Amino acid sequence: MPPQSNTTEQFRSKAMSVFAANQVKTDPDDLANWGTDWTRSFKVDPLAIVFPESVDQIVTLVKLAPEWGVALVPSGGRTGLSGGAVAPNQEIVVSLDRMNKILEFYETDKIVHCQAGLVTQALQDFAADQGLFYPVDFSSSGSSQIGGNIATNAGGIRVIRYGLTRRWVAGLTVVTGTGEVLRLNHGLIKNATGYDLRHLFVGSEGTLGIVVEAEMRLLPQPSEQQVMVLAIPDLHRILDVLRAFQDALELSAFEFFSELALQKVLAHRDVPRPFSKASPFYALLEYDANRIDIANETFESVLESGCVVDGVVSQSLSQASALWELREGISESIASFTPYKNDISVRIGEVPGFLEDVERIVSQHYPDLEVVWFGHIGDGNLHLNILRPADVSIDDFYQRCHTISPELFSLIQHRHGSISAEHGVGLLKRDFLNYSRSDEEIQAMRALKRVFDPHGILNPNKLLAA
Amino acid sequence: MPPQSNTTEQFRSKAMSVFAANQVKTDPDDLANWGTDWTRSFKVDPLAIVFPESVDQIVTLVKLAPEWGVALVPSGGRTGLSGGAVAPNQEIVVSLDRMNKILEFYETDKIVHCQAGLVTQALQDFAADQGLFYPVDFSSSGSSQIGGNIATNAGGIRVIRYGLTRRWVAGLTVVTGTGEVLRLNHGLIKNATGYDLRHLFVGSEGTLGIVVEAEMRLLPQPSEQQVMVLAIPDLHRILDVLRAFQDALELSAFEFFSELALQKVLAHRDVPRPFSKASPFYALLEYDANRIDIANETFESVLESGCVVDGVVSQSLSQASALWELREGISESIASFTPYKNDISVRIGEVPGFLEDVERIVSQHYPDLEVVWFGHIGDGNLHLNILRPADVSIDDFYQRCHTISPELFSLIQHRHGSISAEHGVGLLKRDFLNYSRSDEEIQAMRALKRVFDPHGILNPNKLLAA
Repeated sequence: MPPQSNTTEQFRSKAMSVFAANQVKTDPDDLANWGTDWTRSFKVDPLAIVFPESVDQIVTLVKLAPEWGVALVPSGGRTGLSGGAVAPNQEIVVSLDRMNKILEFYETDKIVHCQAGLVTQALQDFAADQGLFYPVDFSSSGSSQIGGNIATNAGGIRVIRYGLTRRWVAGLTVVTGTGEVLRLNHGLIKNATGYDLRHLFVGSEGTLGIVVEAEMRLLPQPSEQQVMVLAIPDLHRILDVLRAFQDALELSAFEFFSELALQKVLAHRDVPRPFSKASPFYALLEYDANRIDIANETFESVLESGCVVDGVVSQSLSQASALWELREGISESIASFTPYKNDISVRIGEVPGFLEDVERIVSQHYPDLEVVWFGHIGDGNLHLNILRPADVSIDDFYQRCHTISPELFSLIQHRHGSISAEHGVGLLKRDFLNYSRSDEEIQAMRALKRVFDPHGILNPNKLLAA
Repeated sequence: MPPQSNTTEQFRSKAMSVFAANQVKTDPDDLANWGTDWTRSFKVDPLAIVFPESVDQIVTLVKLAPEWGVALVPSGGRTGLSGGAVAPNQEIVVSLDRMNKILEFYETDKIVHCQAGLVTQALQDFAADQGLFYPVDFSSSGSSQIGGNIATNAGGIRVIRYGLTRRWVAGLTVVTGTGEVLRLNHGLIKNATGYDLRHLFVGSEGTLGIVVEAEMRLLPQPSEQQVMVLAIPDLHRILDVLRAFQDALELSAFEFFSELALQKVLAHRDVPRPFSKASPFYALLEYDANRIDIANETFESVLESGCVVDGVVSQSLSQASALWELREGISESIASFTPYKNDISVRIGEVPGFLEDVERIVSQHYPDLEVVWFGHIGDGNLHLNILRPADVSIDDFYQRCHTISPELFSLIQHRHGSISAEHGVGLLKRDFLNYSRSDEEIQAMRALKRVFDPHGILNPNKLLAA
């Protein structure tokens, strides 16, 4: 990267050759707001925020950036949890907020061609208006944007049935680090004409190109869903419950959370406790409502075998959404504790041993701290949130957690698991990447970075140290 | 590439440092057999065939190849249709035939860890033995190998429901052009730790690395399937039939073929004509047998609207497989005509206009030739086979077809379609790549080739001209 010697005023005067005055923000409040994501542990210090309104403006900016001596941080809904959209070092934040339109709807193909700044929920709503369904969903979908979903290959709560964002990207337009516009795959189902670059950009966290448009595939609306919440006496029973239900019917979701997670949600939202008696763990299942008989039968069998001790089932859409709040409210309810988030995964077959590993680490290293467990255990994905005590500074707390991480990550490495299952690497996990990727893989990733971003201007220092 | 100055004997003596004598073949018949694929239009001239039995042997060979001045052609079941596995220029063919074992089965994950030389049908059979299902299927699955399926991202007859090979690759081991072994993704569902290199190698046709092992994901067995064959009076009604059935139920397959295609199968196999009266086109549908009532209702409605004129439905598994023969026998039945294969696709919404384009080209340029139409119209994928008259030489025939191709490909380019939907690029479509990929994309592909194969020893001249 060229040295960064721009003052705000110098940048403003240069930027006027590309942007209108109302497309550039440099007020301290704006810098703080658009310069960060949902992490709260990184220094935030952007030079400016720009709000392009066309692909051409982004191309022009990217081509000028090396000359101007500025790096660019692509920015979506800023709901990331790994610092991938944080601007710590006088970067220009390139917000996609104003490129949020649906450009075209291909009805026969069930494909929406949209700009990257489209909010995930707006895509879900558009789909519903057409009698269709966009299946990727998570608690931040009211703020997150499709471009960010693609850049992180977002997962969420229905991966068990519908996979990750990658699966729904039928076409992708990116601006590379040299300002080239690649329009990839054009919504085709079958296209065997060489390397599928689309998949390289999905999950690349804005380090290879800026996602500017996408063609997202929709599905027919699923039949009505029913939600069941179960009280589970023991962490190790969760996998037995999962298997019993998976053998009996197709699950749309299988989430679990701990009693402490539930307590945090109850303290934060006006929702009732699902059972009068607390239980160490809970599971939330979703499935086609017309399978209710089989679901009930399966419930009876897991109750009998002692894998669950109680259960409740939704009788209406509003009850279903109230039950979902118990799970979806967790992240928000613990945000004020600046949690240290572990987002880890292994193959499903490794889950039992992996849970033992994690329990040991927690009891050895965090006996004095609150640990909130939840996650998508049907995908092998566990969210382990260590809460910061009010009297410990963020720096000290993260320092302590970072010191413990290598021990946990070694165990994950031993099981060929992932140190970042769905949150991405960003700044938070960058220095631990070697626990999930080999030296040869990391060298290859660096070489690919040089191909698409030879000047090192795209989200530098994220994912790979510059 | 280094100059190629090896004699057979020189190579044999070098190869003995890596391989046992029975792992190297240089007899003319063997060279002819393993040096080609199902195309019959390319010069075949390999220096030798080697049969490695371990990843280590492949690594050693790849590392020595630049020094030895030889290029390598990775070779699976040799059922390819674009010359991707042809060795025209004194290459060493690296056959995976002897690396055909299942290494491990992860039951909880429903994942098979296998060597790349495992025959597709052997994976299907293994899955069935476990009460599971490997959904990728095509007429060559009795010969094709998993490694080749991955290298070409094979599609086939059930893409409409289950997608392409890519979707089932949970982990992948490749040997790059520098002899590095990359073990990618390890069967994880969620793994957001940087660029997903796995997807770059899927569909790369052996030009970036040699696929040596894979972790393939299986599915629960689907319920019993029923097959329906319909007689359709007019090409343009096919899409209406597809829509009617897709709106009513989930299709596992929707294939179409022309009367001439049927005639070729009937001449080649001992199967009966499905209807007493010939029809210009036919469609074959497959769906869950328990949906028979809805399927019958839909049949009545398309019969009434004139979209179909007759129909037959399978009453047993053997009847279902007899009906499938009508479609799956086509490729084999026309092989002796050395057909010029067009494997083209567009977005589904573009299919009607695209069919008009193709009809015009056929009537203008091939009025004197037999044209066999079939394909996976539910994926937007059409196979247009021009049959070679017995009195025209292969060279002259291909020359003529190649001269006409640009006009067809221009129309496909205009619709942002693919000039190779599922057969890959290989040698056959290499010089037409620009009709489906932009100059910028092709430049990026070349740069990626240099990253993973800096010596240019992996399948040179395939996909991209060296």
